[in-house]
Amino acid sequence: MANFTRTIPDGDTHERDVCADCGFVAYQNPKVVVGSVVIADGKVLMCRRAIEPRLGFWTLPAGYMELGETVEEGAAREAMEEAGADIQIEGVLGVFSIARIGQVQVIFRARFGGDGTPVYAAGPESLEVGMFAWEDIPWDQIAFPSVRWALDAWRSSGTAALGQAASNPDDDRRGMHPNMRPRDAIQDGL
Amino acid sequence: MANFTRTIPDGDTHERDVCADCGFVAYQNPKVVVGSVVIADGKVLMCRRAIEPRLGFWTLPAGYMELGETVEEGAAREAMEEAGADIQIEGVLGVFSIARIGQVQVIFRARFGGDGTPVYAAGPESLEVGMFAWEDIPWDQIAFPSVRWALDAWRSSGTAALGQAASNPDDDRRGMHPNMRPRDAIQDGL
Repeated sequence: MANFTRTIPDGDTHERDVCADCGFVAYQNPKVVVGSVVIADGKVLMCRRAIEPRLGFWTLPAGYMELGETVEEGAAREAMEEAGADIQIEGVLGVFSIARIGQVQVIFRARFGGDGTPVYAAGPESLEVGMFAWEDIPWDQIAFPSVRWALDAWRSSGTAALGQAASNPDDDRRGMHPNMRPRDAIQDGL
Repeated sequence: MANFTRTIPDGDTHERDVCADCGFVAYQNPKVVVGSVVIADGKVLMCRRAIEPRLGFWTLPAGYMELGETVEEGAAREAMEEAGADIQIEGVLGVFSIARIGQVQVIFRARFGGDGTPVYAAGPESLEVGMFAWEDIPWDQIAFPSVRWALDAWRSSGTAALGQAASNPDDDRRGMHPNMRPRDAIQDGL
């Protein structure tokens, strides 16, 4: 396996992992998670995780962006993969940083495609998928703090025209808090 | 040097570069560029590039986000490194995708710190730094298309409260257009 040592490559300003065997510089950059708050009739689309971390807890359709796609395309792909939902992106709802794990989350507000009727089905990474009114959201079974941040941003925006993108809440400006109750799994993506 | 072959790693859905010598999986993720439109008295802070690509052309203070920082911290760091400017972030002005090169740009609107007086100086990656009114921007010497997109978003927002974050313009929804006149350098970062 790769045999990394910490070195500052020529022309760089930061130490990086360089493989002593093959010379490869493993630049570690923040990763982008793209996802959506998909709404219809005042309800939001949520997915119960079929995978670790936080298996069994509820999240939004979201995941790591891939090369060659736009942020909007990535969010639409994740909604299809995780929730079988064809969505129409409205705009950016929030941009959140989870500095503790080197992650940036770009979360959109979206509606269902076609005539807007909710059509969805659990994908392989979801145990189940459902639409929830605000008061019916399973608040004690939310997978990650950033899911709550995105839901709060949705509640603030409602169905009005999108305003300024939300950022991290005041009690976690850098995304450094560890995970949510009732479990202490490691936060890794939405 | 690393000896990569294209393989789908166990449990993955996409082909990745795997080093045949050391087994390292070189996940290639989109990279995040963070930057700012820093304004004072109706003028915007711009930097003339001292490095390739697009040496000698004008850009905004922006660059690759590092691990361990938030998007806001990264944008502030870049403003200090490239333009000697202590800035105060107001909010997200635009989120742009350059799918052609696997890049996401999170561009903020910002003002100068302290009492807001413009204080700036060229950093090592800038030949010169200056404040420009809209009509004085060196439009024929802009480094990258996304610089223009961000400037357009600034013009639309003016000094009013920030509204919905801008996205790619209609004539380049995916960020696939090659570079700008008058040179055909490869776009690499702002």
